[in-house]
Amino acid sequence: MNVIADFSVVPIGVGVSLSRYVAACQEVIEESGLSHQLHGYGTNIEGPWEEVFAVIKRCHERVHEMGAPRISTTVKFGTRTDRDQTLRDKMSSVASKL
Amino acid sequence: MNVIADFSVVPIGVGVSLSRYVAACQEVIEESGLSHQLHGYGTNIEGPWEEVFAVIKRCHERVHEMGAPRISTTVKFGTRTDRDQTLRDKMSSVASKL
Amino acid sequence: MNVIADFSVVPIGVGVSLSRYVAACQEVIEESGLSHQLHGYGTNIEGPWEEVFAVIKRCHERVHEMGAPRISTTVKFGTRTDRDQTLRDKMSSVASKL
Amino acid sequence: MNVIADFSVVPIGVGVSLSRYVAACQEVIEESGLSHQLHGYGTNIEGPWEEVFAVIKRCHERVHEMGAPRISTTVKFGTRTDRDQTLRDKMSSVASKL
Repeated sequence: MNVIADFSVVPIGVGVSLSRYVAACQEVIEESGLSHQLHGYGTNIEGPWEEVFAVIKRCHERVHEMGAPRISTTVKFGTRTDRDQTLRDKMSSVASKL
Repeated sequence: MNVIADFSVVPIGVGVSLSRYVAACQEVIEESGLSHQLHGYGTNIEGPWEEVFAVIKRCHERVHEMGAPRISTTVKFGTRTDRDQTLRDKMSSVASKL
Repeated sequence: MNVIADFSVVPIGVGVSLSRYVAACQEVIEESGLSHQLHGYGTNIEGPWEEVFAVIKRCHERVHEMGAPRISTTVKFGTRTDRDQTLRDKMSSVASKL
Repeated sequence: MNVIADFSVVPIGVGVSLSRYVAACQEVIEESGLSHQLHGYGTNIEGPWEEVFAVIKRCHERVHEMGAPRISTTVKFGTRTDRDQTLRDKMSSVASKL
């Protein structure tokens, strides 16, 4: 089962500047080799279910290791059985209708 | 790593009545034995990371099996390393301040 | 346009104990008179669009006044034009299928 | 109060192909003149609170007018009182740490 996901990680208890945690999480995502795209309020990522959620878990582990005692994350994700679809397909499909 | 999560599953392509899919997902959750609580816009669930996300995956599998070709899910979840906390603790902590 | 919503407010930059902010937000919700229900990862609330989002805005204002310099919130909400539906209806509809 | 938001609109009851609804919503956003950026699982938008939520409301109205009887939306948004911050600032801040 393939997943297209979007997630954002909010470290709690480490002050208001969160970008270095977001950057660390971005490195974890890059290490995974999965297709991904950072945006202004999270990151798109796609791949097999187990791999996508393993990456999100490693982000939590990494951000905890950096000293964040608490993390709150929001993930939106979709699966479909009618056809294969990539992030790029989704973007193209919307773009063609604009 | 323990997780407190809240998630809601939106089946797409099966019309506007979604409650039987939500009910099926609720059965999957109950089969897991994890602590959980249905509310008006999703379900709270808590437990070890792998088990919580395995339940959410089984919900997707079950809802696809029921005929939904596409599913969009939102999960909010938190982890913490400073102390153990349950859903009940969270609720009590807020209640004590009201 | 009526809305059934679920939201959770995460104050950032005020340490790891968030329950007094959640409680303050709960008071704002109660002052609104809108139908609502606290759960372990947020609050369900329903009513006219403008009123629901005005409540969420007042929560942000209140939590900032309490000293939180930054807030990250997740809202899930639904509207429908085919029929009226309340939170209670949604819960009953699922319960009848369990 | 300024808001940086990310939202995705899921029309329910209109089949599995949602891109034309997403495109219509994108037009609503462009009409608003607010700074925004489409990504693979939603749209970033920023501006004054009232304007941002008015745009999201018009998206719901437009998508209902197009025939969707039910819509489920997820919005993540942040406010801060310590300093002004734009979507571009957020992206730059993360990029500088990669």
